[in-house]
Amino acid sequence: MPSIKDVAKHAGVSITTVSRVMNNFPSISESTRKKVFDSIRVLDYHPDYIARSLSKKQSLIIGVIIPDCSHVFFSELIKHIEMTAQNNGYKILLCNSLDDKEKELSYINMLKEKRVDGIIMGSHLINTEAYKSIDKPVITFDRCIDDKIPYIGSDNFTGGVLATKHLIDKGCKRLLHISGSLKLASLANKRSDGFKLTCLENNVSYQIIEYQHAHLTFEYFYSFIEQEVSRFLEDIDGVFCSNDILAYALYVYCLNHNISVPDKMKIIGYDYSQFTRILQNPKITTIAQPIQVLGELLCTNIIHLIEDDPATKIYSQIVAVELIEGTTT
Amino acid sequence: MPSIKDVAKHAGVSITTVSRVMNNFPSISESTRKKVFDSIRVLDYHPDYIARSLSKKQSLIIGVIIPDCSHVFFSELIKHIEMTAQNNGYKILLCNSLDDKEKELSYINMLKEKRVDGIIMGSHLINTEAYKSIDKPVITFDRCIDDKIPYIGSDNFTGGVLATKHLIDKGCKRLLHISGSLKLASLANKRSDGFKLTCLENNVSYQIIEYQHAHLTFEYFYSFIEQEVSRFLEDIDGVFCSNDILAYALYVYCLNHNISVPDKMKIIGYDYSQFTRILQNPKITTIAQPIQVLGELLCTNIIHLIEDDPATKIYSQIVAVELIEGTTT
Repeated sequence: MPSIKDVAKHAGVSITTVSRVMNNFPSISESTRKKVFDSIRVLDYHPDYIARSLSKKQSLIIGVIIPDCSHVFFSELIKHIEMTAQNNGYKILLCNSLDDKEKELSYINMLKEKRVDGIIMGSHLINTEAYKSIDKPVITFDRCIDDKIPYIGSDNFTGGVLATKHLIDKGCKRLLHISGSLKLASLANKRSDGFKLTCLENNVSYQIIEYQHAHLTFEYFYSFIEQEVSRFLEDIDGVFCSNDILAYALYVYCLNHNISVPDKMKIIGYDYSQFTRILQNPKITTIAQPIQVLGELLCTNIIHLIEDDPATKIYSQIVAVELIEGTTT
Repeated sequence: MPSIKDVAKHAGVSITTVSRVMNNFPSISESTRKKVFDSIRVLDYHPDYIARSLSKKQSLIIGVIIPDCSHVFFSELIKHIEMTAQNNGYKILLCNSLDDKEKELSYINMLKEKRVDGIIMGSHLINTEAYKSIDKPVITFDRCIDDKIPYIGSDNFTGGVLATKHLIDKGCKRLLHISGSLKLASLANKRSDGFKLTCLENNVSYQIIEYQHAHLTFEYFYSFIEQEVSRFLEDIDGVFCSNDILAYALYVYCLNHNISVPDKMKIIGYDYSQFTRILQNPKITTIAQPIQVLGELLCTNIIHLIEDDPATKIYSQIVAVELIEGTTT
C-alpha cells in the first residue's frame, strides 16, 4: 500500500503539502492541487479515513435535514448543497424528517457523537431548546432558533408583500393566504406578516388558513383544499399560496369546479422550483427563491463554521426574491 | 458521561442486550428495544460512534450514487431508500454523479477506505472494471455489471414492449424511440430492445435516437428535441420516450409547433414519478415503475449484503411495470 510519503515523492512536494491538499486548505495553488491529485490517482493511494477522522476528530460529513427530499424545492436545494460540499471535500448525509421528531433529534445526537461535523437544518419539527444545548456547527434554512445559530433564508417578508401587492394591483378585493403552520418558528411565517400588512395598508379584507407541515405532496394539498379551504372560496378572489405545488393543487381544484382562473380567482405561489419552471399550462405566477444561491450559502457557511476560519465571521443572510408573472393572475 | 453499563442497569437488561439493540439485531423483542431506547434517551447516552465503527469496522452509512437528485424519479427513489435505511439503523450519504466520472470513482474509494459500508449505484458513467476490482457490498439500480454484483430494476424489456404495442394499437405506423445512450451498460437499454422487437414483429417502421446521459432536465431535453429530433418528426406518428420529462418536453415542442397531440402525434413516456402523477394537462401516457418498491429493495438488499446474513442469498430482481393510459396517445 502506498503511503502519504510516496504520494509526496511522486508529486515532488512535501508531505505537509499533500496533507493540505487533502484537507482543502485554501492557500494551495490549482497546479499543486492537480499534481497531488494526479499522484494520488496514479498510486491508488487510500488514506485510512476513519483513523484520520478519529485523530482529527473530523468526519468530513455534513448532515442535511429537510422535511422531504422528494418535494421539488428541497430536491433542488439538496443538489446545490451536495455539489458545493463535494467541491470542498465534504459529503452529505441526507435525512428526511417527514413528521418524525425522533429522527430530527437523532441527527443532533450524531453531531454530539462526532459522526457528522455540522448540520444544515431545514426542518421545523422539534423545539429550539434541543439546538441551544449543543455548542457545535449548525446552520438553519428559514429558521431563527437563537442568536448563536446563523440562518440562511429568502426574503420571505418582501415575498409576502410582493405577492399581495400583485394580487391587489390585479384588482383583487378579498384575499386568502394559505400558509404552513404559523406555530413553528419558521422564517417562512414572515410571508404571512407581509401579506397581512399589505392587506391592512390597502384596506383589503383577508383571511389566513394554515396547513400542517411535512406532508408537502400534491395529493395532501388537494384534499386539504377540498376539506378546509373550499367552503371559503366563494367569498375570495385572490389566493397567495405558500408554495407552488399548493398553488397548482388550487388551480386544478378551480379547474375541476368551474372557477375560472385568473378571471374569477387569481392565484400566486412561492418557490419557482423546477416543477414550476417546467410547467407550461398554466404558467404559475410566483415568488422566485434563488434556490442555487441558498444551497451554496448554506453549505459554504456550515463549512466555515466547521473549519472555524477566524477570518470569516458567519452572518445570517436573507437573499432577495422576485416576482415571476405567469398566467394565473 | 453515562456508559453502556449505566444504560443496561437503567433498562434492567444485560450490556449485550443494549449492544444488540444498538446494532439492530433482528432477534430483539419490540418491548426490550423500547426499554433500551427509553433509557438511552433518559440518560442522554452517546456512544463514541467513530471509535465503535473503528472497532467494528462499520460506519452504518450507505453511499447512494445517482445521476441527479433533482430529477423527479431519483428524488423519489432516494426518499424511499433513506426511509428504509433509517428503519434499519443506517444513514445515507448522497452523491450526484452528474457528468463527473471522478466523483463516481471517489465513492468507490470511500468503500475501500471503510467510510461507507456499502454502495447503491444508480449512476452509469464509469466502466464496469472499477467495480469488479472491489470485493465489498455493492448493488446497482438498472445496471448489470457482473455476475457477482446484484442489480434491482424494473422490467425494462416488458416496459418497451407494452409502450410500443400501445402505440401500434392506437394506429401508429412510423415509430420513434428517444433513448438514453445505448453505449452504457444500462438495463434501461432493454426498453429499446422491447421497442425494436415489437416494431419488427408488427412490420412497423422505426428509428431510435439517443441523447447523452446525466443532464436530465426539461431544458436539456427541449433543446435536444429542437436540434436532434425535430427534423425527423414529420415522418413520425408515435414516439416512445425513455422518461416522462422528455415526453413532456416533446409534448410542449409539439404544442409550440402546431403538431396536434394525440391526433397527429402520439407520445408515451416512462417512470410515472411525482411530476407525471401531479400533471393534469396533459395526462401523459406512460409506463409506471414502482418507485417505492425499487427503493425499498435496493436498501434492504444492500443491508443484507453488508450484514452478510447467511440466511439471505441476494438475487438480482426485476420488478413488474404497468401501462398508465393518459391523454397523449
